[in-house]
Amino acid sequence: MNFGFHVTIEGSFDAAVQRVSEALKAEGFGILSDIDIRKAMKEKLDKDVPSHRILGACNPPLAYRALQSEPDIDLLLPCNVTVRQAEDGSIVVGFLDPDMMAQLTGNPAVHEVARDAAARLRRVRDALGA
Amino acid sequence: MNFGFHVTIEGSFDAAVQRVSEALKAEGFGILSDIDIRKAMKEKLDKDVPSHRILGACNPPLAYRALQSEPDIDLLLPCNVTVRQAEDGSIVVGFLDPDMMAQLTGNPAVHEVARDAAARLRRVRDALGA
Repeated sequence: MNFGFHVTIEGSFDAAVQRVSEALKAEGFGILSDIDIRKAMKEKLDKDVPSHRILGACNPPLAYRALQSEPDIDLLLPCNVTVRQAEDGSIVVGFLDPDMMAQLTGNPAVHEVARDAAARLRRVRDALGA
Repeated sequence: MNFGFHVTIEGSFDAAVQRVSEALKAEGFGILSDIDIRKAMKEKLDKDVPSHRILGACNPPLAYRALQSEPDIDLLLPCNVTVRQAEDGSIVVGFLDPDMMAQLTGNPAVHEVARDAAARLRRVRDALGA
């Protein structure tokens, strides 16, 4: 099963995170969590890995509808949007595909919400790649 | 596809979150993110929902191995452990099943890590239900 989609962008890592956050905001997604993988791996394991963040994106009206229809969808929320520095210096932005959530639950009400969320995240991807 | 497992426990909501955090710690999982769904829904939509938290659990050595084997697994990390108040007042604790991550990627190295993570989370579930 395909569980995500990606776009590669140029520029500094911090500028990429800022661009991603703004593009998500334009589609109604706030950032509910922000995990710095590089920092966590250094602190917990003393391992050096490239810059890497996991942003927990949430469109509140869509999350509300999904949770009302299917409380167990909380296991798949928020929708991860990841930003990582690749070996060639470019920045890879990944999006968890909400359609995967709908397929996992098999709940038609979740399908409808997931379709809306997926369309928004694909527009974010396209805006970043333009 | 089955994507999680649950246990129902008694007691106050805050005490449950504390118990869950301690049981996770005993299996090597720290909490990298903590989303208060009730607070978010009240602030963003002025909707009243029962107490509900999404904890992002991470066992650093396992996460490191998974990310080295399959960078796209970042879309499914950290592993959600959710705590929510049910209508009857009991507390439902949910665990995203790491085996689902392995099935989604189809990567054998991820399978091995996921099996370890799933065994630990099932022990956490059993400890909470005991």
